[in-house]
Amino acid sequence: MNKLLIVGTVAFDAIETPFGKTDKILGGAATYIGLSAAQFDIESAIVSVVGEDFPQEYLNLLKNRNIDLKGTEIVKGGKTFFWSGKYHNDLNSRDTLDTQLNVLADFQPVVPENFKAPDVVMLGNLHPLVQLSVLEQIKRPKLVVLDTMNFWMDNTWDDLMKVIGKVDALTINDEEARQLTDEFSLVKAARKIAKMGPKYVVIKKGEHGALLFHNEQIFFAPALPLEEVFDPTGAGDTFAGGFTGYLAHTGDISFKNMKNAVIYGSNLASFCVEKFGTERMQDLTKEDMHQRLEEFKALTQFQITLT
Amino acid sequence: MNKLLIVGTVAFDAIETPFGKTDKILGGAATYIGLSAAQFDIESAIVSVVGEDFPQEYLNLLKNRNIDLKGTEIVKGGKTFFWSGKYHNDLNSRDTLDTQLNVLADFQPVVPENFKAPDVVMLGNLHPLVQLSVLEQIKRPKLVVLDTMNFWMDNTWDDLMKVIGKVDALTINDEEARQLTDEFSLVKAARKIAKMGPKYVVIKKGEHGALLFHNEQIFFAPALPLEEVFDPTGAGDTFAGGFTGYLAHTGDISFKNMKNAVIYGSNLASFCVEKFGTERMQDLTKEDMHQRLEEFKALTQFQITLT
Repeated sequence: MNKLLIVGTVAFDAIETPFGKTDKILGGAATYIGLSAAQFDIESAIVSVVGEDFPQEYLNLLKNRNIDLKGTEIVKGGKTFFWSGKYHNDLNSRDTLDTQLNVLADFQPVVPENFKAPDVVMLGNLHPLVQLSVLEQIKRPKLVVLDTMNFWMDNTWDDLMKVIGKVDALTINDEEARQLTDEFSLVKAARKIAKMGPKYVVIKKGEHGALLFHNEQIFFAPALPLEEVFDPTGAGDTFAGGFTGYLAHTGDISFKNMKNAVIYGSNLASFCVEKFGTERMQDLTKEDMHQRLEEFKALTQFQITLT
Repeated sequence: MNKLLIVGTVAFDAIETPFGKTDKILGGAATYIGLSAAQFDIESAIVSVVGEDFPQEYLNLLKNRNIDLKGTEIVKGGKTFFWSGKYHNDLNSRDTLDTQLNVLADFQPVVPENFKAPDVVMLGNLHPLVQLSVLEQIKRPKLVVLDTMNFWMDNTWDDLMKVIGKVDALTINDEEARQLTDEFSLVKAARKIAKMGPKYVVIKKGEHGALLFHNEQIFFAPALPLEEVFDPTGAGDTFAGGFTGYLAHTGDISFKNMKNAVIYGSNLASFCVEKFGTERMQDLTKEDMHQRLEEFKALTQFQITLT
């Protein structure tokens, strides 16, 4: 089985949406990436850090999905990273209410021996120097995918540029792509990003789908139109997990196969938003995913004859 | 050849975008619909009204595309409908600077004898009673498509409900669909609209594409990602012209074929926004459209094997 190495936060989230409010629940970029990628027959590992307050139950939940946690450090006496946010009524924007870095502040990632030659690496949202450190510890894999956010553009631009220069693909949302490039047109933004390093650029537009750019080729995967989006938290990471999980599983990083990976990313993200936090991803089955693939085909595929 | 009857404004527009500014140029819903539908081998006619100030050159431009103007009244001494608008920097919103109804104020539509049994009718944006009057003058066609806007919801709700109850399909933009139904979710909005009458609902999302709803089936056509959107004026009407032009041409109103019609609508709209006003639609060829169809296929079609 091919190996996917995941780097990112494992955390507590407290979420408020127009539909309700949670206490501290399981969250974090690497958690969503891991749960999503676990739908594919791969070996995966999470490099991350949690505090002593992190429940064994949550760790088991990940381990039971064949996710290796030898690289997830548990800091004695430490507290787990905590994020709290409140979504606006349209669910397209949110306010951060609280961020407590806790054990993340001094995190030094260590890649376990058995994952030092992964097939695919997913560098989830974290400090660019942590992402870089992981790359320095491993044999160059077939594909390295980076996710980042505006916070690192604002505060660690130079470090971010270093890691962007070393990856094959970037997944980023539309507003962040605009901030990164100072271009409003996403076509122009993707072209500028490619010049920074990544040969493949995925721009995530939330409910408006995702665009994949490579050279002058473009592919588009819509988001599934849903009656109700319950909680968008983790949708972008779930997308990234589906994208890299599928690519690790197939071992094929051609543009043609990356189209499929983008569809699987959208597929899995469409489940994530149906319930609070990771709830829907916890009981998701391969059958659910395959059935939804048929919905994506019905939604997008057509047979046209020239007029 | 099948017949498409088009109702809507033929007008003067003055447009300001971040890229420039025009004097009074050719505009109007029926103009855009007509120019777009003219890409298909059909007979079409425009029922509308202009003033004596409307240049013969503009009328010839439409006539030369095989658009019958017997139903386009020229009011002696009258002035043509005029709209002026200014787009904001993101081109997603605009302010109306001036609206002069002029000859539109007392418009009584008259359908010419040779178009009293059309195959498809496109009721472009106009007063709902004008749209109703056209339906009352014709033999029930295979398909009637209605376009409308928030102005008629605000001012002529009861009349709008009457005409909505009589059509097969509604094309409407996302914000207007939300206003019409008081639902934020477009899936729920489309379901409510279907209960008002139209079995087919097309929700246009501008740069984010268009959704086609029928019973519980959904199809999605993206907008082509463009480097530069020059002027969005008329894109929605151009979409409607491509949609109805293709359906009139093929004479097939199955859901399967309506998917293709939505793709052709997006295809044609992607040209419209490339230049100011109708400029790009005037020199557009079938070859351009066929080439862009290949781009739409590359953008959306995939070959997936189950994992």
